[in-house]
Amino acid sequence: MLAGMYNMDRLYEAAGQRGPLCIGLDTAPDYLPPAERRRFPSDAEAVLAFNREIVCAAADVAACFKVQIAYYEAMGRAGLDCYAKTLSFIRRRGSLVIADIKRGDIADTAAQYARAHFEGDFEADFVTLSPYMGMDSVEPWLSWADSRGKGAFVLMRTSNGGMRDFEYLELKEGSAPAERRRLYHAVGDRLAGLALRRRGKSGYGAFGAVVGCTEREEAAEIRKTYGSLFFLIPGYGAQGGAAEDAALLLRDGNGGVVNASRSILKAWTAAPGPPKEMKLNRAAGAARETVLAMGEAIRRAVSRAAAEDYPA
Amino acid sequence: MLAGMYNMDRLYEAAGQRGPLCIGLDTAPDYLPPAERRRFPSDAEAVLAFNREIVCAAADVAACFKVQIAYYEAMGRAGLDCYAKTLSFIRRRGSLVIADIKRGDIADTAAQYARAHFEGDFEADFVTLSPYMGMDSVEPWLSWADSRGKGAFVLMRTSNGGMRDFEYLELKEGSAPAERRRLYHAVGDRLAGLALRRRGKSGYGAFGAVVGCTEREEAAEIRKTYGSLFFLIPGYGAQGGAAEDAALLLRDGNGGVVNASRSILKAWTAAPGPPKEMKLNRAAGAARETVLAMGEAIRRAVSRAAAEDYPA
Repeated sequence: MLAGMYNMDRLYEAAGQRGPLCIGLDTAPDYLPPAERRRFPSDAEAVLAFNREIVCAAADVAACFKVQIAYYEAMGRAGLDCYAKTLSFIRRRGSLVIADIKRGDIADTAAQYARAHFEGDFEADFVTLSPYMGMDSVEPWLSWADSRGKGAFVLMRTSNGGMRDFEYLELKEGSAPAERRRLYHAVGDRLAGLALRRRGKSGYGAFGAVVGCTEREEAAEIRKTYGSLFFLIPGYGAQGGAAEDAALLLRDGNGGVVNASRSILKAWTAAPGPPKEMKLNRAAGAARETVLAMGEAIRRAVSRAAAEDYPA
Repeated sequence: MLAGMYNMDRLYEAAGQRGPLCIGLDTAPDYLPPAERRRFPSDAEAVLAFNREIVCAAADVAACFKVQIAYYEAMGRAGLDCYAKTLSFIRRRGSLVIADIKRGDIADTAAQYARAHFEGDFEADFVTLSPYMGMDSVEPWLSWADSRGKGAFVLMRTSNGGMRDFEYLELKEGSAPAERRRLYHAVGDRLAGLALRRRGKSGYGAFGAVVGCTEREEAAEIRKTYGSLFFLIPGYGAQGGAAEDAALLLRDGNGGVVNASRSILKAWTAAPGPPKEMKLNRAAGAARETVLAMGEAIRRAVSRAAAEDYPA
């Protein structure tokens, strides 16, 4: 980008100022306090109201938001209306938003998807992409980085069990016996190539990668090998990942954002008092407290990781 | 499925009766005759009207329809309204429809996507899925095959140039020097495993694969190796694929559906007379003629392939 900044640079700044936590708005209607959910004429409207409360309560203590579109698609047209309004509410209030859409298609179809998610009703600052079909499913999105600073996180090495089915398969090409080269390395190498050509002032590429990892050595290897890639790190909280795991994929507490969703959205269930008296704004307050606690846990984990790497 | 049929069985029957052509409604607004497009208050309404004309004109000579959601997402909320109405129009008229959504996400998110596309506003008979994250991005969809016969086509070996980036990479595991085992084989093997457990009376599994291929030997190998998988074969027509290539992935002219989109939607541009006098119903008539011609070309190619394999 010749003038201005990539969104990835803005995200780097936000993570530096407010910590690397990303709030995931995977807002299933049954994550809401039941009495509050029933106050609304539709689930989609209830979810929108809760999302707005959380954005108001916690935007100042999180790097960004991530909205998982599946939860909105599941509510049909009304859900996508809620999705559009959630994105625009986040962006109008000055926060960055990642559309977690994991789209992956080629040529004209990819260009249509890019239009869908980088302008108009569903405009986001970043998207997530799936690389299975090849780099011609990623490259059509790049012109939006050049023209409007838009960013993407491409699936690379995820933390789900099924990751071993394909991402983790060892490749034949150029692998010495001592070196395990896996599918995700091939993806990462191609993304690093893109990052070199579109590197912002943060030092990170305009497009990054989705990386979740719980093995210490592997996480350290990934962070070291792909120094130009900013990571979207899923799985903190309800999915079982811990601050320690996330810290290994960060660099000085930045270089990635760490997503947590359900544990934030459902933080209210651990608050005192009967659930039927729980209001949306109090639920959002509980979400804020959880975000703060998670941010603090990540900061401590980053300090510990640094101390281990560089003993006094 | 204990009672009833899988949608894949219904698709097999439809392909047997009406030929294996799948009409792709990747309907960009600029594929419409310009004067007709301008008659409508919005592009989304114009596209819906054209889709309906094509369904009425050609449903009786095609196996099914495929709707590429990217073209509708690109029109925002109005586009998804058009998408929903297109799907329900096709299904109410008794044809099968594949939602070309290439979703790929895990666990709860996959379950949300399945709800989104197998019931409610966006209900389809089949979806397309991306396997990058592993089989836990495919398996949550299977309960819908059991309960309602729904089907899916999982990306396996596509025909775009970027296919070589990842799908085509050679794997280390268990490969003798003479045997090239590629990523797409690993995906295909897992899908064949699923097909064995959910095989309908057609002999094909409830879930199939997206396979496009222009190399004769490789296509023959894929058809032979994955005998239980029904294929969605993209790329006939505008994308350069020919009837000969598609025939190699069929078995006795069935066992797959062959998709063509733009060449059908834009068939009217080759019709006589000035474009500004082209009406939607005449454009749909031209689409029907193209579908018939393509179907005939595939039938001839299937006969030729059979003659080559079994010389008299």
